[in-house]
Amino acid sequence: MPNDVYAPPALPKGTLRVTPIGGLGEIGRNMTTFEINGKILIVDCGVLFPEEHQPGVDLILPDFTPIKDRLKDIVGVVLTHGHEDHIGAVPYLLKLRQDIPLIGSGLTLAFIEAKLKEHRITPYTLQVKEGQKERLGPFNLEFVAVNHSIPDALAVAIKTEGGSVLHTGDFKMDQLPLDNRITDLRDFARLGEEGIDLFLVDSTNADVPGFTPSERAIGPVLEDVIARAPRRVVIASFSSHVHRVQQVLDAAHANGRRVALLGRSMVRNMTIAADLGYLKVPDGVLIDFKKAGNIPDNKIVYMSTGSQGEPMAVLSRIVNSEHQIEVGPGDTVILASSLIPGNENAVYRIIDGLTKLGANVVHKGNAKVHVSGHAAAGELLYVYNVLRPKNVLPVHGEYRHLVANAKLAVQSGVPVERAILAEDGTVLDLRNGDVKKVGQLDLGYVYVDGSTVGEITEADLTDRRTLAEEGFISIIVVVDKSTGKIITGPEIHAKGFAEDDSVFDSVRPKIEAALAEAAQSGSHDTYALTQVVRRTVGRWVQASFRRRPMIVPMIIEA
Amino acid sequence: MPNDVYAPPALPKGTLRVTPIGGLGEIGRNMTTFEINGKILIVDCGVLFPEEHQPGVDLILPDFTPIKDRLKDIVGVVLTHGHEDHIGAVPYLLKLRQDIPLIGSGLTLAFIEAKLKEHRITPYTLQVKEGQKERLGPFNLEFVAVNHSIPDALAVAIKTEGGSVLHTGDFKMDQLPLDNRITDLRDFARLGEEGIDLFLVDSTNADVPGFTPSERAIGPVLEDVIARAPRRVVIASFSSHVHRVQQVLDAAHANGRRVALLGRSMVRNMTIAADLGYLKVPDGVLIDFKKAGNIPDNKIVYMSTGSQGEPMAVLSRIVNSEHQIEVGPGDTVILASSLIPGNENAVYRIIDGLTKLGANVVHKGNAKVHVSGHAAAGELLYVYNVLRPKNVLPVHGEYRHLVANAKLAVQSGVPVERAILAEDGTVLDLRNGDVKKVGQLDLGYVYVDGSTVGEITEADLTDRRTLAEEGFISIIVVVDKSTGKIITGPEIHAKGFAEDDSVFDSVRPKIEAALAEAAQSGSHDTYALTQVVRRTVGRWVQASFRRRPMIVPMIIEA
Repeated sequence: MPNDVYAPPALPKGTLRVTPIGGLGEIGRNMTTFEINGKILIVDCGVLFPEEHQPGVDLILPDFTPIKDRLKDIVGVVLTHGHEDHIGAVPYLLKLRQDIPLIGSGLTLAFIEAKLKEHRITPYTLQVKEGQKERLGPFNLEFVAVNHSIPDALAVAIKTEGGSVLHTGDFKMDQLPLDNRITDLRDFARLGEEGIDLFLVDSTNADVPGFTPSERAIGPVLEDVIARAPRRVVIASFSSHVHRVQQVLDAAHANGRRVALLGRSMVRNMTIAADLGYLKVPDGVLIDFKKAGNIPDNKIVYMSTGSQGEPMAVLSRIVNSEHQIEVGPGDTVILASSLIPGNENAVYRIIDGLTKLGANVVHKGNAKVHVSGHAAAGELLYVYNVLRPKNVLPVHGEYRHLVANAKLAVQSGVPVERAILAEDGTVLDLRNGDVKKVGQLDLGYVYVDGSTVGEITEADLTDRRTLAEEGFISIIVVVDKSTGKIITGPEIHAKGFAEDDSVFDSVRPKIEAALAEAAQSGSHDTYALTQVVRRTVGRWVQASFRRRPMIVPMIIEA
Repeated sequence: MPNDVYAPPALPKGTLRVTPIGGLGEIGRNMTTFEINGKILIVDCGVLFPEEHQPGVDLILPDFTPIKDRLKDIVGVVLTHGHEDHIGAVPYLLKLRQDIPLIGSGLTLAFIEAKLKEHRITPYTLQVKEGQKERLGPFNLEFVAVNHSIPDALAVAIKTEGGSVLHTGDFKMDQLPLDNRITDLRDFARLGEEGIDLFLVDSTNADVPGFTPSERAIGPVLEDVIARAPRRVVIASFSSHVHRVQQVLDAAHANGRRVALLGRSMVRNMTIAADLGYLKVPDGVLIDFKKAGNIPDNKIVYMSTGSQGEPMAVLSRIVNSEHQIEVGPGDTVILASSLIPGNENAVYRIIDGLTKLGANVVHKGNAKVHVSGHAAAGELLYVYNVLRPKNVLPVHGEYRHLVANAKLAVQSGVPVERAILAEDGTVLDLRNGDVKKVGQLDLGYVYVDGSTVGEITEADLTDRRTLAEEGFISIIVVVDKSTGKIITGPEIHAKGFAEDDSVFDSVRPKIEAALAEAAQSGSHDTYALTQVVRRTVGRWVQASFRRRPMIVPMIIEA
């Protein structure tokens, strides 16, 4: 992806070096490093979820190469909020050095601690809140409240000898949020007055015109749908969306219904949120799933995961009749969630499956049951105009989002050369209010597959895609070590190519003839014979089927 | 997919049997058969494009099983319009019986004839137009103009001894279409007055509230974008969308620009449309692509295919620098097209790639450059109220679309038991104005892969998905025929599993030990030994990697 890779120079004392490691050119695996005077601060350390051209991959991590040899210099990781794309890679980082301090708000730390517990890691943590200032080596940190689709999100100002930075994390500008904790524009104004040299700003919705509606707008819709529902209601959303669940609890309560939480992550996260006071559970509204069967159908709401069509989540299992809950005629299912690009087919399969079972399916497409967690263009302009940063670095987005965000910065008065388009691995040096690109690191995708990290390579994925498209044909021939003559075979096996192995009857004599010819001409080392078989089968399959399966010839000498 | 498969009874004389073969439960491969008194009429014969869980599949055909033994009874195939999902499977049908007559409008027949030419088939055709009546055996046909995203689309009324049917094909209700050829509600009203017993009606947009905007609304937007474009303009859309291309020609002409068509299907279809008078080319506006390089950048528009991110189409090749046209800063690219679900990631990759090249990308998400070709809910209500059909069969849609359409029918006054939800293979008998479900055929997906039709099975696709997710490990052992002792091996090869074969060093002794034990216990037929290897490697890979690659053990006796 990076066009021109070049190494940055040694970092002069007093200069702040900013390197986005992930999140620029993709929605996910957000991570940025800040370095000055030999010390490194990290902001966020998230995962990216794979697309369909990355089959079998469980997670994608940021490439830790730039910090692998600098672990002892890391003063801490600021986690702006508790979403997977900001905290999900922390366990993998801590496996490199377990005592790196994690800095974040109460809920953020509670979420990462629960995750680390599964990895059997107890982290060093520093809990902070908005308004708080902390010094970590050469970094003076100041935390600012921001509103997002998870409570307790923070922006972080980083003041150093080299200059001052503000990083928004993910945010939006809901002016009437459920918890009344708005993105603190007064603090942004003050920080702007003090001078922000570089502004790292969430680009996710920069190409969406206007303003994200308030989360509050969803409540009445949920209440109305639940009020009209004749039987059971199942609501699916993200398992970390505390305020969405809050609205479900409130809407259920207003309708005299009880709520059972479904799905391991939903139960775990909401237990944490309730314990810490972020989720206010109306008296007696929650009921254990095991006891929910005793409640009449018109008195229960199930709150579940699986709104993105994830095959192993509750909703998919319900559709496939692999869950204790059987949805049927008269039941209502609400997908109170976004539709993340790439998940459309999976989600529509869920909607079709539920419709076929007789359920009334309410979703973003036919009712106002979701709002985004990110600032749209109109909101971003407010922020630019209040902060008036010297330089802007759009972060968190595909390239088109970064470009759209940079355009907004320019429209608000930031000089075009100070609205910086960078990508993962771009090295930026800040000094005296000026930002210079000084390097471009060659960072890759690090794939987690099963328990392996970084072992699956791009070449493996290319092989997997070939196998997926066309299957493979393997041809085994045992030949005499000295003469190259066939002892046994060719045995031909195929997977994903044809049901019936008899299709290979016509190629067997061709292989025998080709090998005999090769043996006669004296070229019978196994590599040469392998190539003979590959060529023979390749030509035959192309001519006979116009297909290109992977051909796996194996010559065994005996 | 079908819940309860059961065979229909023999068809009584004078009863009309209607069987949707494809298009109910999917967007594509539309095909319905009508049978009475021993004769069969087919309406449409289209293809379905595969989703990501059908890797390597080129096309999906309707399952011709119900008509395979009845070929001589087919009186003709009515093609409602020239889109692939309505005509694309005709070549495969004609390969079964080449002289089945094709009935359709001028443009529709021209498109199918061009396609059949590539298959070296010259079809028997009967060209019809709106208002025309034709008798084909026991079927009295009457054709009605409908408006769609391709010119010259027709609905067809089928009057028989068993009852009267109206099939809309695909349609919408643009009241000011570019060619002034509206969906003929006066004819619908007259047919309704005469009595329509069963109404087969397009469901694609039944869950979209309101009305589809007029195609005409796009023209001024295109004109405006082209007027502001400082350099070259590339516009991508569907290669059969004559009216969209018309608007591009007009907008370019109004701006003093010339237009070069790119892509084989675009050139072929527009040549046909212009020859037949459906596309009105302003004098001198078209220029051959080869000569377009001589035109100044601000005087040219390229009209191309590839708006869905198809990897081999012009737009993808431009993004990957595999096309003569190099897009750069200042260029404008317009995706004047829908975003078909499932294509999101591919299309966004195109948008990101173009943005990175410096182009200004205009698409449905940021400008009004596309309208749908299908009637939304508001339009469907007009049709129901004008036609007042006795029974309704929603067609063309995923299950949720069919349900949404049936609801609209009921809202308009059709009794709920006469708004019929069916799926591919449901057999419906019509007599005396009543429709009865009398059977459910077990119809499958027929996959085209390369030059093979129907050879790839669901089992092959399952294998392909496994291979895609996890790759495979093959283990070859040559054993002594009589003792079962290892002669050579185990040789282990893997694809899509790990870059480095040394990961297998630790399992080799386990395989040897397991085989030795099996040989000692006397169980050394190849099948038993194969299972021993499979089990040994399977356990090892699960314990060591928590992954489940396909394991392909091969025991060769020598």
